[in-house]
Formats: sequence, structure tokens, C-alpha cells
Amino acid sequence: MSADGAESATPGAGAETVFRSRWVELPAGVAELDPDTLAPGFVAGAAACGLKGGGATDVAVLGYEGEPPESASSAILLTRNAAVAAPVVICRDECEQGAIAGVVVNSGNANAATGEQGLEDARAMQRAAAAALGAEPANVAVAETGVIGVPLQIEAVLEGIGRAAEGLRAGTASHFTEAIMTTDVGPKRCAVSAGGVTLTAQAKGAGMIQPGYATMLCFVQTDAVVDDPEAELRRAVAGSFERITVDGQMSTNDTVLLQASGASGEPLPEGLLDAVLLQLALAIVADGEGATRVGRIAVEAAADGEEAEDVARAIANSPLVKTALYGSDPNWGRIAQAAGMALAGKDGVPELGPDLIAAEGLGGSDPEAEISIRLERGDGAAHVFFSDLTHDYIRINAEYTT
Amino acid sequence: MSADGAESATPGAGAETVFRSRWVELPAGVAELDPDTLAPGFVAGAAACGLKGGGATDVAVLGYEGEPPESASSAILLTRNAAVAAPVVICRDECEQGAIAGVVVNSGNANAATGEQGLEDARAMQRAAAAALGAEPANVAVAETGVIGVPLQIEAVLEGIGRAAEGLRAGTASHFTEAIMTTDVGPKRCAVSAGGVTLTAQAKGAGMIQPGYATMLCFVQTDAVVDDPEAELRRAVAGSFERITVDGQMSTNDTVLLQASGASGEPLPEGLLDAVLLQLALAIVADGEGATRVGRIAVEAAADGEEAEDVARAIANSPLVKTALYGSDPNWGRIAQAAGMALAGKDGVPELGPDLIAAEGLGGSDPEAEISIRLERGDGAAHVFFSDLTHDYIRINAEYTT
Repeated sequence: MSADGAESATPGAGAETVFRSRWVELPAGVAELDPDTLAPGFVAGAAACGLKGGGATDVAVLGYEGEPPESASSAILLTRNAAVAAPVVICRDECEQGAIAGVVVNSGNANAATGEQGLEDARAMQRAAAAALGAEPANVAVAETGVIGVPLQIEAVLEGIGRAAEGLRAGTASHFTEAIMTTDVGPKRCAVSAGGVTLTAQAKGAGMIQPGYATMLCFVQTDAVVDDPEAELRRAVAGSFERITVDGQMSTNDTVLLQASGASGEPLPEGLLDAVLLQLALAIVADGEGATRVGRIAVEAAADGEEAEDVARAIANSPLVKTALYGSDPNWGRIAQAAGMALAGKDGVPELGPDLIAAEGLGGSDPEAEISIRLERGDGAAHVFFSDLTHDYIRINAEYTT
Repeated sequence: MSADGAESATPGAGAETVFRSRWVELPAGVAELDPDTLAPGFVAGAAACGLKGGGATDVAVLGYEGEPPESASSAILLTRNAAVAAPVVICRDECEQGAIAGVVVNSGNANAATGEQGLEDARAMQRAAAAALGAEPANVAVAETGVIGVPLQIEAVLEGIGRAAEGLRAGTASHFTEAIMTTDVGPKRCAVSAGGVTLTAQAKGAGMIQPGYATMLCFVQTDAVVDDPEAELRRAVAGSFERITVDGQMSTNDTVLLQASGASGEPLPEGLLDAVLLQLALAIVADGEGATRVGRIAVEAAADGEEAEDVARAIANSPLVKTALYGSDPNWGRIAQAAGMALAGKDGVPELGPDLIAAEGLGGSDPEAEISIRLERGDGAAHVFFSDLTHDYIRINAEYTT
């Protein structure tokens, strides 16, 4: 095993940062590492088993190098979709979510709507990865992504898991990040250090994106001590993956896994996990299927938070607003209409005109457009990040077949 | 005044029917008239006043020829959008909805989000049309459609109303139907006779279509006796305009007006209004912005009707399902995912696989595709008609500017 990524220091002058969004604020004192870095104490491996075709890697294993430290903790958040995939059932019902030693992932097949055989296949993946990592099956999470309703070629996947396990390496996650991609245009990953800890994360996702509770696939590793990983993860996800939409579609497979070894003896600096997950969430929106621009709709002065959320989602998911963002049309009338739809049947709605709506950001060519609406009904507020709706979205989704 | 349309009889062999949808069943004994026919006792006029540009007609008046008969009745259904347009406020608050003598319409400007001036302008239209029809303002409905948030060129509109009123004609509605169109590819109208009565109707609509209570603009005239026009209209609208979606967007201006003179002395044959409005609703979906195909999603065996409706809307408005319809992809996984999203958080959801989902209709090239899903949770049922999502939808909405 080599550690070719872990030694990378903060990028030098001129190196590109992955924190490109205006909406992400890194806490003070954070050093950005080579984004492919894998946190110390973890290893990852990947292989191609034919699910994606073209020889692309599509199965991956990530876990601790050796036994998990005594100080280790973990948490998993899963989609709320009622048509959940087999791996989500396994993570929900057959994993010790607070004591995850590793995860096995495939891309190209979601193993969703695959019946009892799908559950058996996910369990087989869990067992194979557990054996490779020297862990119990209940301590291994399973995540899958890709086409829905197609039985898994389980023999090929198990053979791939074997090869991925043989190639487990420390220091870098680049092969892991690549193996979890599907329609993603590029890798989505991040590595930072601060306060004596390292935090690394990998995500994938481009379509079927409006997480209801967790989101798509995202894996986070750190050597920090995290005493309440579920609370940490819930808060960070609430401010990141739960703030985004590409097409308003909650997935069957959304999974976020946080693994904290505690080996550094230091806590996670405040705001660090939040900033990393927000950047990855924004990367998913910016790479939304066919997307050319990202909007941030801020709803203010709603009657309450729920109303603000409803209005923000109605605007962010309106195909009329999304095409206006694509067409650089500062069309506040479409924002008024979508807000009015969300407020249908409510009393005391003010006239939603240009005095209350700032839609100029839709115009122009800023890749990150700010728009806002005030409802003058109370102090509820919410914001949602969304992608535009473009010709390429139609091309990708009308041509993609099962 | 000529009556050039009213004499048209049932189309001869080879004449094209407007009842093209497989989903519309005409009651027995119905004769289809020239679709441009206007019911006896009514007159209509239209003029161009520059709202649409290019010299197209864009203002129209329709009402009784002379005094409304004693037997006359009427009803209006309006959008539930909280950001309603000025004409909707006038129809809601300043009209005798059961005693409507006529209606004035413009296309090209929705007069929505136009403040107090917008209300004043709508009242001025109402007064001008009332004077032309010899009616009280409170007995004249106002409907407008077009761009949101732009002040009405009221002087031009009032002058146009004057010219439209000078040209009031009986027998035909073709000039009226043309004057109410905006992005419609073609006219949407219908004329039938049965049981001694004539029923004629004109509609417009292509985008911002998911009526929540009423819909877009639709005007219905008959010489039948209709004792409870509101109940009749609500039932017919519930089975037609409230069953459709193009882009999931409730409009600010939806209006349906039924005027029944009662002059024939005969009641409306059962099912006639339902069939006419369903055909017009389907014409709106088929002419949805950029649409090439219409789908009918039927949800069966839901826990209750509300659940069935939620699932049907989630499927009908999923851009993934809509692009699958466009791409002729029988992708039942996208139907399972959308249904699962609508059922998020509920217990006892069966695995939504091919045993429960019939998605073959998405494939092929049938312009009217049937798809269905059974939830095995009770006996709730609902269906929704929806258009596909295509390149032309993006072109139309990204290029259309305020």
C-alpha cells in the first residue's frame, strides 16, 4: 500500500480549490489538501466488474486500515423514499449504524425494486466486503446507484469486490471516487485539515436529486473524535444536501455515511463538516443533468419555516423558473406565480410584485444566481439551491433507456 | 349579424371530429356541429389592440344577443393561486357569478401582479363591455391571459373592446377563439347538439398548466336549462381540467365560465358537458408547450383518494417520467421512484415493481399512452393526464422573455 495522496499539502499558489462556490464559507485556519486525499487510517479499493461497461470501475470498498480504533464512531442517513433500494434496507435494518467499519459500493445498478433477490444480493455484497475488511457484516454499510429494477449481476460484483479488496490503498480516494460515479461529469470530493484533524469526503449525483432526508451517495472519513456522529451528520446534511434540488426527485438510494476514527484525539472544528458537505452538495447541483447555472432562492418573512420551505421548493422546482435561469430571463412573474401556487388557499398574501421579489440574478450569466422573495407574513425563512433546466437535461433523460 | 356557423349540421362522412381522444366518450345521440359554432342566443366579437403584436386579434367580447332570458343561469370557477390576477379578483369579488350576461377577454397580458392600477384597469374593461352588451358591470366577467407583471395598455384595450362590440356576430365563435389564444398552436373549441340543446365551448392554454380548482380560460355557452350551473360546472371541471398537467404550474388567471340561456327549454343531456370539457382539457395537454405525446397515469388500490392523487401528480409531474414519455422509454423504475417519493414516510408500501406497474405505454409512439400503478393499500383511485417534456419546451420557455 502506498500513501501517495496523504502527503499532499495545501495546494500551492495557483492550485485550484474545490471550494468554488460563493455560498460556502470555510472556517478559519483550514488547509485544503489534495482533493483526492483519503483521511489517515482509512483504505480504499476499486475494480471494474462490468456494470457500467467500457471497462470503467464500478465497485469499491472503503474502510479502516486494520481494526477500527476504540474511539471510532459513525452515522448513516438514508433516503425517505418509500420505494427504497435493497442496500438502503440493509443499512437501515441490518447494520450497526454507530459502528460502521467500512462500506461497499457499486455504480451502474441501484439494486432497487429487485425484490427478495435484491436483498440477498446486497447481503452477499456486505458479507464479501466484511470478509475483505476483517469486520462483521453488520459493521459494513452497502450503497448502490444506477438503473432501477434490473437484477444485479451478483457473481460479477462479488468477484469485483474481491479484486477491489486486494487493491486496498491508504492515502488516496481517487479510485474510489471514480468508481462511484454514474452520470456525473466529474468527480466530487474534498479534503481538508484543521485543528489537528483531517476530513475527506467523496460524493456522486447528478439526476434524481431532491434529497428528503439524506442524499445521493456521500462518504465522509475523518480522524477526528466525533462523540455524536448522528447529530453532527444530521445538522450538516440539513444545511447542505437537504438544501438542493436538480429535478425535484427524491431518490431510492440516497445514502450519506460518516466515519470518524477519533485517532487524532481532536474534535472536528466547528463548521468544517458543514462547509465540506455544502461544497459537495453544490457540486452536485452545478453538475446536475444538463445544468449550466445554479440558483439560490431565499424566501424571507414567511409565516413560518414550513411555509418558507414550501415556497422555496415550489420556485426551485418550477420548470418555468428553471428555464428562465437557463435563458437568463429575470422573469419575476414566474417566481410570483410559483410562490402563489405554494400559498394557494392561504389568507393575507400580499401582492407578489417587484417590491418583494429580487429576480435580477436570473438574468445575466453569473453561474451562481441569487434570487429572493419576501412574503411579509412573519419571520419564517428558507433557501434552496437549484439547477437550470436545459436542452441537455432533455437529451440525457429522453435518450437514457433501461 | 350573420349566423354563418349555426346552420352547420353534423359533419358529413370524412369530416374531422374534434373528439379525437381515446379517453373521451360522447353520450349517445350527440351530433357534432361545426366546431366554430356559437350556441344560439349568443354573440361574440373580437379585435386587435396591439397586446400580442403582429396585428393578431387579442381582445374579445361574448354575451347574450339582447337581454338574457329569464331562464338564464351561469357559474364561474377560478384559480386557487394566492397570487391571483386582477380579473380573477373582479370575477371573485365584483361579479354576480350566477347571473353573468357576458365576458370580456384579452390575450397577451395577464394583468397579474399589477397592483391597484391592474384592478382599476380590469374594472374599466368590465364597464366598457357592459355598456356594449347593455348589461350591468356586475353581470360581466373579465378574463385575461399573457405576460405577468406588465401594466395593461388600458386605452388601447378599451378602444379594442369598442371595435369588438361593434362587430358582435351570432352563429360563430371562430374570431373569439382566435382572439383568446397565446402560445396555443391551434384553436381549442367544440360544438355539439343533443336532446334539443346546443353546447359550444372555447378554451386556451398551453403552459403554466396544472389547474388547482378551475383552469386556464374556457368559455361555455348553451341554450339548455341548467338549474344548478355551479354544481354542473364543478363536476365537469373536476373530471377534465382538474385532471391535467403540462408543467405542474398553477396559473394566476385560470377561469372557466358557463353560460346557459335555458332558451331551448330542455336540460343538458347527462355527460355532455363532461365530454366537451374533457376533450378541451385533453386538447390543452396535447398542445402543451413542446408536447409530442400525452400520458394517462392511473393509480389504483391506494389507501385513499388523496394518496392516489398525490401519487398520480408525483408521476405526472416528474421530469424523469415526462422525458421517458418523450423518449419512448418504458422506464417503470422512474414511475416506482416518483410513487415512492409521494409515499415517503408511510408504512406498508409494497415493493413497486413490474407486477404492480404497467409502463409499456411509455414506450412506442402512441400519441396517447396508458400507464398504471397498483399500490395494494386500499381502494383509492385517481388519474391524471400529462404531456411529455421535450426540447421544444426548453426552447419555448428559455427564449420567451418578459
